[in-house]
Amino acid sequence: MLRQEVSLDGKDVPYLYGVDVTEELVGALADLAATADLVLLVTDREVAVHAEPVARGLAEAVRVALFTVDAAEQRKTLSLVEDIVEFAVGQGASRSTVVVAMGGGMVGNVAGLAAGLLFRGVRLVHLPTTPIAAFDSVLSVKQAVNLSGGKNLCGTYHVPSLIACDLRWLTSVPRGLMLTGLAEMAKNVLAVVPDRRPALERALGRLADEPAAALLELLAIGCDAKAPYLRTDPRERREALVFEYGHTMGHALEFVSQGGIGHGEAIAWGMLVAAEVSHGLGHLGHDDLALHRQVVGRLRLPPAAAGPGGLDRERIRAVLARDNKRGYLPCAPDEVPMVLLESAGRVVTGDRGLPLVPVPVDLAMSALEAVVGAAPGATLVEAGPARERLGAV
Amino acid sequence: MLRQEVSLDGKDVPYLYGVDVTEELVGALADLAATADLVLLVTDREVAVHAEPVARGLAEAVRVALFTVDAAEQRKTLSLVEDIVEFAVGQGASRSTVVVAMGGGMVGNVAGLAAGLLFRGVRLVHLPTTPIAAFDSVLSVKQAVNLSGGKNLCGTYHVPSLIACDLRWLTSVPRGLMLTGLAEMAKNVLAVVPDRRPALERALGRLADEPAAALLELLAIGCDAKAPYLRTDPRERREALVFEYGHTMGHALEFVSQGGIGHGEAIAWGMLVAAEVSHGLGHLGHDDLALHRQVVGRLRLPPAAAGPGGLDRERIRAVLARDNKRGYLPCAPDEVPMVLLESAGRVVTGDRGLPLVPVPVDLAMSALEAVVGAAPGATLVEAGPARERLGAV
Repeated sequence: MLRQEVSLDGKDVPYLYGVDVTEELVGALADLAATADLVLLVTDREVAVHAEPVARGLAEAVRVALFTVDAAEQRKTLSLVEDIVEFAVGQGASRSTVVVAMGGGMVGNVAGLAAGLLFRGVRLVHLPTTPIAAFDSVLSVKQAVNLSGGKNLCGTYHVPSLIACDLRWLTSVPRGLMLTGLAEMAKNVLAVVPDRRPALERALGRLADEPAAALLELLAIGCDAKAPYLRTDPRERREALVFEYGHTMGHALEFVSQGGIGHGEAIAWGMLVAAEVSHGLGHLGHDDLALHRQVVGRLRLPPAAAGPGGLDRERIRAVLARDNKRGYLPCAPDEVPMVLLESAGRVVTGDRGLPLVPVPVDLAMSALEAVVGAAPGATLVEAGPARERLGAV
Repeated sequence: MLRQEVSLDGKDVPYLYGVDVTEELVGALADLAATADLVLLVTDREVAVHAEPVARGLAEAVRVALFTVDAAEQRKTLSLVEDIVEFAVGQGASRSTVVVAMGGGMVGNVAGLAAGLLFRGVRLVHLPTTPIAAFDSVLSVKQAVNLSGGKNLCGTYHVPSLIACDLRWLTSVPRGLMLTGLAEMAKNVLAVVPDRRPALERALGRLADEPAAALLELLAIGCDAKAPYLRTDPRERREALVFEYGHTMGHALEFVSQGGIGHGEAIAWGMLVAAEVSHGLGHLGHDDLALHRQVVGRLRLPPAAAGPGGLDRERIRAVLARDNKRGYLPCAPDEVPMVLLESAGRVVTGDRGLPLVPVPVDLAMSALEAVVGAAPGATLVEAGPARERLGAV
């Protein structure tokens, strides 16, 4: 089992990980919970097979109450958080209770917010079971749920006490979830650590046949990219906004598709749109635009016609107009703040020193049309049978 | 208009107050909101008469959206907070939005939590309109709502940017609300600043005929008592737990009565119970027990038979067993953590240096019986017509 300290909001949080290490992780968790009267284990019903041994092992050391959620994005609401804290109190939770979030980003968020709100904050442990959660979501103190007006508009900051992951859990996720993790790591490579591109390529190449080794490599990209930003900007309100790269159009596509376009696919399209916008504004050169197409191409997205091509453009505009980065900087009603790159690994710095630039919504929409038009499926998809790349691992 | 800086979680927050100063307060608020795209004014329908000029004045400077709540304690839920943040986003709120909480403690709490959660925290202004809110609730970064299992179990910490109060607003509250403010100031005198007892007595004496002067004096007691604790323990988890004095039994009485016993009356009874418990354990001497009866007597509570005397004892026990101070220190299932005094202004220090002592629930319940039995109305009520003390001011 490997151990890495992650600095989150000034606290060093241990991240324990490895392959086939569930028993050791449960031991570490039981140690942490030695002072707890109750562990509230919040899981997604999809991960029951992994949660069962964790719950059983923990129950030998401490009282465990299980709360199972239906991890659909539409259920990521304050009402669900209320259900969780009500359940916890009904089970006799106190300030010494530990909330364990075992699942993907959605479970981490609702359980994380519940832990942040219960008695104004009890201990939180993340056991991520999806690539995106393990590589990205858990490396954050931001906990949030959606409002009907947009994603992640309502939440708080809460530092986990422990993060632990058996990478074996990640190998059984469906392709869409794997793509999300890969897309976020592609984002890290394009926007923050372009020198880690060989590692990304290597991981993508090994994913089908040596998934454990590939996942270890991807986790390292996630930690390397985020660690320095979490130290200097733990609440992700200044320089760490770079991790929103591709997320402006990405969130809009994901939201308007009502989950039809997964997060990974959405931000992959979002990065291409951001690159197109930046190129159009004279920031990003031809080579880096091509690099975007090449890196995103390795992700083997579904054809554009089945994705953003089919969405209602007016609804996309409406969601862009409510983007949650609005308010970081003055922005006209017909503009939306976006993270743009001037080259791989270098952001365009805008007002207030933030990595955000107000972009006319019209320009973002025409960049979307350009991306969709240029990508009728085939041009973005690599040749070769799926299994050889990152099919069912 | 007077101005006092209050240190809240390391930030100096201006508290502006005076009598008949609404216009100046609105000016200060408009200055703060100069960088806001929207002011969300959350009010209680009971204070519409005071809110109208504030909304009108503000609307000359910034866009104002009004959200009116029914300020009943049972409505202090996460669902209401969700309604507020949904409304805010529907009105086009952004990170630059300012939430203004105008009302009593309940409005301050739901709007405060909404401000803490919206975009993970936007600016918050408190305009307290009740004595308890002005003297006590706004001097805190704790924001919370109730769960079905108890009061204030779910919330977060959020620092207001400004607190402002026209004490004129406080003069029109019903007697129950005035009593709450008076009871909390009596608590401050008994538990923290016994040397301010003459000021409390003076304020009680002047309340009917010179309410403005009396309220200024009471506000000063609130600030003086709390300020040093807010500097050293802003999240009120250590020494500032002293302000929970009388609140263990108080919260239980308030909760079980479903609001029939107001907060002020409840904690007044709660202080008498705490004094009885502390006396029974050999901490508090006869003189200080008598002092409790004398100070609480000045508050002119309704007769015990109409208050705690009529409540279901088993339900009180059940609520005590879930008290939200549980978990601060190890506590057996049949014990409840209470703040106890060894003399006026001096707490009994328990485990971990906290001002909390585990008290057998049986002892707390028998102390309640003793207090109820000793107070069949008359013994706690001062002679003299109501108007001369603190009737309708």
